[in-house]
Amino acid sequence: MARIAILGATGYTALELLKILARHPQAEVVAATTRQDSKPHISEIHPSLTGLFDLRCTALTPEQTGHLCDIAFCCLPHTASMEAVPQLLDAGCRVVDLSADYRLKDPGVYEKWYEHIHTDPTRLSTTVYGLPEIYADRIRTADLVANPGCYTSTCILALAPLLAEKLIEPTGIIIDAKSGISGAGRTLKLSNLFSECNESVTAYSIGKHRHTPEIEQILSDIGGVSVQVAFNPHLMPMDRGIFCSIYPRLEGQHTQAQLLEVYRQFYAGQPFIRVVDQIPTTKDVSFTNFCDITVRFNRDQLVVFAAIDNLIKGASGVAIQNMNLMLGLDQRMGMLKC
Amino acid sequence: MARIAILGATGYTALELLKILARHPQAEVVAATTRQDSKPHISEIHPSLTGLFDLRCTALTPEQTGHLCDIAFCCLPHTASMEAVPQLLDAGCRVVDLSADYRLKDPGVYEKWYEHIHTDPTRLSTTVYGLPEIYADRIRTADLVANPGCYTSTCILALAPLLAEKLIEPTGIIIDAKSGISGAGRTLKLSNLFSECNESVTAYSIGKHRHTPEIEQILSDIGGVSVQVAFNPHLMPMDRGIFCSIYPRLEGQHTQAQLLEVYRQFYAGQPFIRVVDQIPTTKDVSFTNFCDITVRFNRDQLVVFAAIDNLIKGASGVAIQNMNLMLGLDQRMGMLKC
Amino acid sequence: MARIAILGATGYTALELLKILARHPQAEVVAATTRQDSKPHISEIHPSLTGLFDLRCTALTPEQTGHLCDIAFCCLPHTASMEAVPQLLDAGCRVVDLSADYRLKDPGVYEKWYEHIHTDPTRLSTTVYGLPEIYADRIRTADLVANPGCYTSTCILALAPLLAEKLIEPTGIIIDAKSGISGAGRTLKLSNLFSECNESVTAYSIGKHRHTPEIEQILSDIGGVSVQVAFNPHLMPMDRGIFCSIYPRLEGQHTQAQLLEVYRQFYAGQPFIRVVDQIPTTKDVSFTNFCDITVRFNRDQLVVFAAIDNLIKGASGVAIQNMNLMLGLDQRMGMLKC
Amino acid sequence: MARIAILGATGYTALELLKILARHPQAEVVAATTRQDSKPHISEIHPSLTGLFDLRCTALTPEQTGHLCDIAFCCLPHTASMEAVPQLLDAGCRVVDLSADYRLKDPGVYEKWYEHIHTDPTRLSTTVYGLPEIYADRIRTADLVANPGCYTSTCILALAPLLAEKLIEPTGIIIDAKSGISGAGRTLKLSNLFSECNESVTAYSIGKHRHTPEIEQILSDIGGVSVQVAFNPHLMPMDRGIFCSIYPRLEGQHTQAQLLEVYRQFYAGQPFIRVVDQIPTTKDVSFTNFCDITVRFNRDQLVVFAAIDNLIKGASGVAIQNMNLMLGLDQRMGMLKC
Repeated sequence: MARIAILGATGYTALELLKILARHPQAEVVAATTRQDSKPHISEIHPSLTGLFDLRCTALTPEQTGHLCDIAFCCLPHTASMEAVPQLLDAGCRVVDLSADYRLKDPGVYEKWYEHIHTDPTRLSTTVYGLPEIYADRIRTADLVANPGCYTSTCILALAPLLAEKLIEPTGIIIDAKSGISGAGRTLKLSNLFSECNESVTAYSIGKHRHTPEIEQILSDIGGVSVQVAFNPHLMPMDRGIFCSIYPRLEGQHTQAQLLEVYRQFYAGQPFIRVVDQIPTTKDVSFTNFCDITVRFNRDQLVVFAAIDNLIKGASGVAIQNMNLMLGLDQRMGMLKC
Repeated sequence: MARIAILGATGYTALELLKILARHPQAEVVAATTRQDSKPHISEIHPSLTGLFDLRCTALTPEQTGHLCDIAFCCLPHTASMEAVPQLLDAGCRVVDLSADYRLKDPGVYEKWYEHIHTDPTRLSTTVYGLPEIYADRIRTADLVANPGCYTSTCILALAPLLAEKLIEPTGIIIDAKSGISGAGRTLKLSNLFSECNESVTAYSIGKHRHTPEIEQILSDIGGVSVQVAFNPHLMPMDRGIFCSIYPRLEGQHTQAQLLEVYRQFYAGQPFIRVVDQIPTTKDVSFTNFCDITVRFNRDQLVVFAAIDNLIKGASGVAIQNMNLMLGLDQRMGMLKC
Repeated sequence: MARIAILGATGYTALELLKILARHPQAEVVAATTRQDSKPHISEIHPSLTGLFDLRCTALTPEQTGHLCDIAFCCLPHTASMEAVPQLLDAGCRVVDLSADYRLKDPGVYEKWYEHIHTDPTRLSTTVYGLPEIYADRIRTADLVANPGCYTSTCILALAPLLAEKLIEPTGIIIDAKSGISGAGRTLKLSNLFSECNESVTAYSIGKHRHTPEIEQILSDIGGVSVQVAFNPHLMPMDRGIFCSIYPRLEGQHTQAQLLEVYRQFYAGQPFIRVVDQIPTTKDVSFTNFCDITVRFNRDQLVVFAAIDNLIKGASGVAIQNMNLMLGLDQRMGMLKC
Repeated sequence: MARIAILGATGYTALELLKILARHPQAEVVAATTRQDSKPHISEIHPSLTGLFDLRCTALTPEQTGHLCDIAFCCLPHTASMEAVPQLLDAGCRVVDLSADYRLKDPGVYEKWYEHIHTDPTRLSTTVYGLPEIYADRIRTADLVANPGCYTSTCILALAPLLAEKLIEPTGIIIDAKSGISGAGRTLKLSNLFSECNESVTAYSIGKHRHTPEIEQILSDIGGVSVQVAFNPHLMPMDRGIFCSIYPRLEGQHTQAQLLEVYRQFYAGQPFIRVVDQIPTTKDVSFTNFCDITVRFNRDQLVVFAAIDNLIKGASGVAIQNMNLMLGLDQRMGMLKC
């Protein structure tokens, strides 16, 4: 039974982690931290967890937490995470970091997009990027795994086969991404209010969204070529789900059937990738760790569609996949029968 | 006081027409037809109209209806409309047709996309396309106006200035369009059920959506060149609103400010077009006849954003604009103070 | 043309007021105030108003504002309002106060429920309660009108005929009230976040909601007897709308038809009350100033159902009704054809 | 490994059953039937199940199905169920019937509320009502379990302790029940359309809802006295969740703390009942088999609040609880760690 700690237990990703851990047969949550002084019971922060955990939050330091657990999930905001992670690792536990702090290899890129100096830059080059469909072998032995962003996972999974097989041009890829509101976190800001979001669709952060360099870094690694995307995020009036409509420029002539076959071979044996014939819907992957993908032609224009649950496959589900791999368990454990 | 008739009063576009007409100072609804045998009062079909109209639906023929009114709004489904419109015109009234039957100039294109023979093909070439921002002069004197589709209006208004000024390539224009569910009409089909649509986003009719040839026909007319788009519609879990994210290929170098100025000059004096600095939201145009437009650059990729209320500016509001023009009234009447 | 000022222009009630005033033929908005230092244009605060007003917000004092206008709408929070209103009145304008500060006659009751000393207690007894269906005559000549709460209006309108005609017991009236989220205002708090409210229903403030004494005060006035209600508010995952299900104890034997007739006579000539046969829906009154009411029997238990749009009939629409009455205009002006 | 069959696989309750069974360690789905001629794969009917089952639907007769399985879940509509159940039982399998056909003991009551003759009336008196918190012992050995209605479970669980302890009057109990739209099933009717339900709240079937006699029958059994309720169902614009606000008349004086203690003792050891201090929300029980309950006083009026997920605790989750009991398994299996 692996001992698990969660740093930063108040947000939605921590909540979803805890829901999965509540039914995981090989993991036990031994600590959860918050910055709240009151040290609330976990079910006071998340009433939906009532009865599932006998767990009061603590104000332990990362070092203290690291001594208690085998795996720590770091759900802190970026910049807070890079302060905690070195202490956790020094204390001897292994870490899945759900923040953005260890996703980018180049501290200069980090500093440009996040407008903050990286205080742990030497660790960036050795951190393993936690996308199990691509990097499972490295994840198994990693001490520190950088869990991917939600948009990022969707875009990478949707494009990886085409870039690995050199079927599309690596630049000029237009991504029109749609996310539910939970992607914005449990944050008090006007644009997160129900009365602002509901019955409304809009775009935001055009040309400035921080998942852009992450998508490009990993796709460049997969494709062995410098990949460039125009990433355009939009907000949808729903809780959960990311739906990406991706418009790449195809190289050569290929049919829809041929391309679907490329996807099916690329993802053969992957339990959480479903290459489907129909166009996916976010509802069909809601509350699951699946990523559903298909392709279509609109006249000559190739379109790739991919859908995930942003809090599960986009955050906490893939974190559990990573934990399972790190612990030598079946990566489905806690999520699918295995 | 103009006498108004509505053919096909049970759907959402008829409802929105009636709501606007209920406060229009120069129009009086004298007849509304349905195929229902029971001849219900209009407030039995649409309880929200209770107290606004003393109007019982009739089963009048189009010819009879045409004798009663000055303007008929034809809210019938396509193929039903092309049967009714000739009778209405013969009876001497003028017609705003909200179906797709008279939008396309070429009967062959109609038959290809709608899979139905056009029974009134000779009228197509002379029918006026009811987009007031482009064709106001012709609308004023028209006997038959083909009211545009909801996606269509949004895409045309978003692209017209760029094509008229030859600032973008006319082909390879990618349109990622998002619509609320009311765009699918008041139709009993599984995909319209609340429990199917809610908390879900998906794409549909990729390469097959019937608004495609309409967009291309009108943009080609505006641009004086053959325009080709890849139109990709999506469904959003909300009642109302269309949000289009459009990715054209820019010709030459232009800044965001220069392009916004092009839009502002193109739409100078148009009461329902708002060229805005911020990215529009569907909520900001909900229950209005406005179309909000802006442009952004995502690195080198130009993106045009446009938002409307699909039932108002996308259907019934523009129909009233057309009616106002046909009657020699201020086109804002019934919708904005004028 | 009446000169109108709005104090506190950033909230949803101010927005809805401005939308109605934008089409009102006899009112001109001459000033809008905010506490924001930046003095934004009104369309920066509310992008949906773009093009409708050439109006920059000011930081005028209430006294200065009062000199500029004929009618001031006070959209400030409670306790702020009681500071501004005396200054406005002293400056010679008339006031519709949308806060709770002048609704209760008894300063002791105010202090008990709002936990704040009333600094203008002597004015309470003479302030006119702004429910036009009951107090139109007093509203016409009032200098200060206290605009009712949203739940309050719904409950009073639903129960007034039964209490006036002494058809129900005045105590033990159970009210199960359901409201959309906009009723909670444009306030940054966790419970207003989309991801908290969406796909969720709950109850709140049981036994403590501040609309309780207001409902009881006005119903006691109408019924000539001390009325006591158990008011139970709930939150629904939608923007707009209040739906009240009210369970009174009937005195004597009456049929549904008889009771509906009592309602129809009581509200004869009222343009915004619709006594309907079907059970109302909030959608049928959304974006209108209507209140739809019906009654049913569930075995022996009488149930009254009433629905309004909480931001229109529950706040800004009734405020315009009050303004119209104060200006000697048709109370429908700006909202219905008249 | 128990062999499971599902009759009537196209609806939402079948879908939720299958989702739970997909992770149940002691159950294997061996058959699923539909009336569709095409014999679709289960993932064609429910794309969300892609990859979870290798299962093509069949048109087997109930008798044939009964021979294949240990437990059959009957998800047919009422009246269809009473035709299938006898055949299933004759074939030797045990049955959990999710329809209403076997819930009522008295065929006369069934015929009055369902307006249909019961064709298997003699079995009614011996059928076990499948509410595990009350009837677990009988469920364990039953051949036929009548799975409760969704509203029914909520109301019974909310009132059982008060009636068993004789703390409230058994008549005049007012229930104001709120349900998400999935409760209406996957049925093509106007009132189920997204554009009708969304952004709307209303009441329906006042005095006529078929869960009324079921609530009364079971509560009368629990209380040992004839119980009568005024049950008032409402529709909320969300997918899932039932929230009941119940207004009984208290006998004697009791505090909130005392009553909560009564609930906690009554439900001691029940894994799916959470007696909570805060007012429940449907979101906190969404996608779970929990029923959250609390009580409040609004002045003298007792209010009981209870929330469930209508498709899980209200249908398919409790069906799995029943199956687990029938199989001698931990009733949490497949739903909670055990």
